[in-house]
Amino acid sequence: MTGKPIQIYDTTLRDGSQGEGVSFSLQDKLNVASRLAEIGIDYIEGGYPLSNEKDVAFFEQIRKADLGETKICAFGMTRRRSMKAEADPGMQALVAAETPCITVVGKTWDFHATEVLRVSLEENVDMIAESVEFLGRHAEVIYDAEHFFDGYTANPNYALTTLKAAAAAGAKWLVLCDTNGGALPERIAEVTEITRQAVADYDVQIGIHCHNDGELAVANTLASVDAGASQVQGTINGIGERCGNVDLIAVIANLALKKKGYEVLGRESLQHLTELSRYVYETANLQWRNNQPFVGQSAFAHKGGMHVHAINKAASSYEHIDPSVVGNERRILISELSGRSNIVAVATKHNVEDDRELMDKILAEVVRLENQGYQFENAAASFDLLVKRIAGTFQPHFTPIKYRVVAGDRDSHHKNVFAEAIIKLTVGKSLWFDAAEGHGPVNALDAALRKALQEDYPCLNEMRLLDYKVRVVDSGAGTAASTRVNIESGDSNESWGTIGVSENIIEASWQALVDAVEYKLHKEELPLAGK
Amino acid sequence: MTGKPIQIYDTTLRDGSQGEGVSFSLQDKLNVASRLAEIGIDYIEGGYPLSNEKDVAFFEQIRKADLGETKICAFGMTRRRSMKAEADPGMQALVAAETPCITVVGKTWDFHATEVLRVSLEENVDMIAESVEFLGRHAEVIYDAEHFFDGYTANPNYALTTLKAAAAAGAKWLVLCDTNGGALPERIAEVTEITRQAVADYDVQIGIHCHNDGELAVANTLASVDAGASQVQGTINGIGERCGNVDLIAVIANLALKKKGYEVLGRESLQHLTELSRYVYETANLQWRNNQPFVGQSAFAHKGGMHVHAINKAASSYEHIDPSVVGNERRILISELSGRSNIVAVATKHNVEDDRELMDKILAEVVRLENQGYQFENAAASFDLLVKRIAGTFQPHFTPIKYRVVAGDRDSHHKNVFAEAIIKLTVGKSLWFDAAEGHGPVNALDAALRKALQEDYPCLNEMRLLDYKVRVVDSGAGTAASTRVNIESGDSNESWGTIGVSENIIEASWQALVDAVEYKLHKEELPLAGK
Repeated sequence: MTGKPIQIYDTTLRDGSQGEGVSFSLQDKLNVASRLAEIGIDYIEGGYPLSNEKDVAFFEQIRKADLGETKICAFGMTRRRSMKAEADPGMQALVAAETPCITVVGKTWDFHATEVLRVSLEENVDMIAESVEFLGRHAEVIYDAEHFFDGYTANPNYALTTLKAAAAAGAKWLVLCDTNGGALPERIAEVTEITRQAVADYDVQIGIHCHNDGELAVANTLASVDAGASQVQGTINGIGERCGNVDLIAVIANLALKKKGYEVLGRESLQHLTELSRYVYETANLQWRNNQPFVGQSAFAHKGGMHVHAINKAASSYEHIDPSVVGNERRILISELSGRSNIVAVATKHNVEDDRELMDKILAEVVRLENQGYQFENAAASFDLLVKRIAGTFQPHFTPIKYRVVAGDRDSHHKNVFAEAIIKLTVGKSLWFDAAEGHGPVNALDAALRKALQEDYPCLNEMRLLDYKVRVVDSGAGTAASTRVNIESGDSNESWGTIGVSENIIEASWQALVDAVEYKLHKEELPLAGK
Repeated sequence: MTGKPIQIYDTTLRDGSQGEGVSFSLQDKLNVASRLAEIGIDYIEGGYPLSNEKDVAFFEQIRKADLGETKICAFGMTRRRSMKAEADPGMQALVAAETPCITVVGKTWDFHATEVLRVSLEENVDMIAESVEFLGRHAEVIYDAEHFFDGYTANPNYALTTLKAAAAAGAKWLVLCDTNGGALPERIAEVTEITRQAVADYDVQIGIHCHNDGELAVANTLASVDAGASQVQGTINGIGERCGNVDLIAVIANLALKKKGYEVLGRESLQHLTELSRYVYETANLQWRNNQPFVGQSAFAHKGGMHVHAINKAASSYEHIDPSVVGNERRILISELSGRSNIVAVATKHNVEDDRELMDKILAEVVRLENQGYQFENAAASFDLLVKRIAGTFQPHFTPIKYRVVAGDRDSHHKNVFAEAIIKLTVGKSLWFDAAEGHGPVNALDAALRKALQEDYPCLNEMRLLDYKVRVVDSGAGTAASTRVNIESGDSNESWGTIGVSENIIEASWQALVDAVEYKLHKEELPLAGK
């Protein structure tokens, strides 16, 4: 590789955890840090050691991990007013974290110094200089200039004075933060350039830290890099407070694949971006953003009939990059707008694409079910069974007769919550009537179904339920709303999605469960049992 | 207002409906169009009249609506090869839609003309010119140049030739489309500028149509406007295929509030952006994007203790714009990271903020519950009751003793699905044992609870369940995963959110239902009944 190296600084575990609905356990933080190090992120900000015990424990444990070239950073604020740096508990906690790098944030906006910190402009500069100097005795110091762009606009001389104080005190990096996230790219470029020139006499590099409040965080970051910044701070998937930090995934992909003249991570690392994105969502217990650039499930999904038709002729001309470069993949969707060519693409493996009448029937059934709330986009296994049913090639491996779920609390105070399921089904000529308990009603149904089928189909032992999702389709109807359940199942070879829709969440779950098991049995091409 | 007018062209109903999971009914389309017209959107693309009957019906009905200055556009492709424009069914359908404006899309990329359309480069130019000329006899014609930026890169002369053909044939607008969504802002600006100069001799204006595959759609759109484009095409909330179209909300807000020298909609319209965004999500049956810039629920939400403390001192210095300008509002969140100052802000109305010991107890309980999967950010009513319980001021209006839900299918084929609930509770000294049926188990529980309480608390008749949301907290655990239920309830005055968490979805729903009813009864300051 050639080009100017751009350092990637990840703050998913600190600034990212400020996002609404985000919380990481200690083990989560250790796992995420190790994944970030694996793909070669240059700096990982682990947390704020003064704020809570979890972060203190994180720094203790991460010291034992082998992170290769990656540097862990502890994060904190400049020393308190009217106090020596070495006496400040925050400074002490930063040093005690024993990281190779410490990031300290200070005020550059005159208004914040006087109105939020309640110190004089001079004392704020002293706080910055003394904090950086003290921390620099123990580690590489990164100085984050909070509200830099707003501060520069309010009082350019003062903002630059605070940066020069940090540089003179030994900071290795001056990171310009658009804390409120409202700046425009042209302003970010202009101020980065001015700042770079203003501190040219110091042995210090410039970094950029953007938030997405104007939906411009990626553009702002790239504009700053073009103007001279050589460190980018952000989070995986752009999680973070309000509208989030800049999404490092998009920054890395743009720098590596679109911009010229920069060197960032390695090409092999790029292939892990999709996997990393989903890992962080799962760990943070957030839903994936399906339309996320580069790594979203829909990022290379094609729906419109016209496009899909053309894709088969010239795939790359409808995609801005090859999805496999970032570890993602192309998907052809099934939907009412998709027209015949989409259905054909998906139905090809059933060898029915030349049967025009059959194709019409399939299309009509898809439209009918979509009107009820079904969506086959994440339920390819249910679609598969639907095609077989319409084509007359479906032969059920079992026939449900009835089921019942009982759930409740046997006394008050939520101490005796229970769930039981009873099911009746036939396998060929055998009748099975079984019951099971579970953590909840769907878990109990799943257990009862497996119990009834285990003798005839022992291969179900290797099938696992990987994911269970519930979506209220018409949420405005309150508890009478229609419910869509998606179940993702897997065995050692593959995973498959099924769907159920009903006003009754138990019935919707049951439909998805039955399809999941039938798909497994069809997939194995098992002879029908129990005859 | 002064400044250059920028026309807003909405394609939510056409390009937006290509988004994964998006589908609009005919009535949905009519409703959305009327909302868009209300806030003064200049052009609304209603659909593709050749593609389906729903769109044909849309154009028939929208003609009767009063849309003020807003123009409805029908959308289609250039005429087929080897056919006169007037004989082409697509062209005829466009004219039959009887809209004041017609948008026609054509190929600018030489590769697409020869490989996808399978026509010569000359015939493609003829197809564009003849289509525009024919349609121009009936309506204002907007020419959308598909793949313009990729086409220009591949063959600049040919790409410009196609545009000039459209301009010479009478198109009023040449809209440059970054169809694959992968261009960088600097390239968009450069090519827009070149194009503007190349067609300067024609009576035609330039538009821009961006997709978000590089997470740069807003920046690309603004860059094109700065380079001379005076029409912006996009969708509300950026819904659309793959990573979506550019989000018109962010474009409008940036043009109106951040950029200088442009005139877009009116200031009064800006105040409806949040409402419009949520209306479109609800209509399209999509989940809100909480961190969406300007209009997301989290866009002005403050979580970190430090920030919240400062917000109370100087709100505007932590916000890039005043949220009320776009119809949004500031929120203070409750969370483990929030520290004392957040809890104090929320607890203020309970007059407990000076009781340090009580505040510690509340904070500890919030942390404990968050570890179990509770999130109080959307459940302020449950938090309210929690504070009362810890403070010892909570007096229950009723005491649940036990409940049971039975749900199932009495025979196969999903024809006899049922749900019943039985509950036992006391109100003071009265014991109530009641049962009810429902659409699903939660609906049945809700009905049984109301039945048991109606005599003592008739005010519950005016309470409605507005929304019911289910989130699987640890989705990797399959059907044994923990479930978080959020219920939004309302009466004529206000709405309130409650939460329940359990591995058993029925129990989680029950917790949220009980809190919803207790909050209503506390809110009314009703004396305890049944004594």
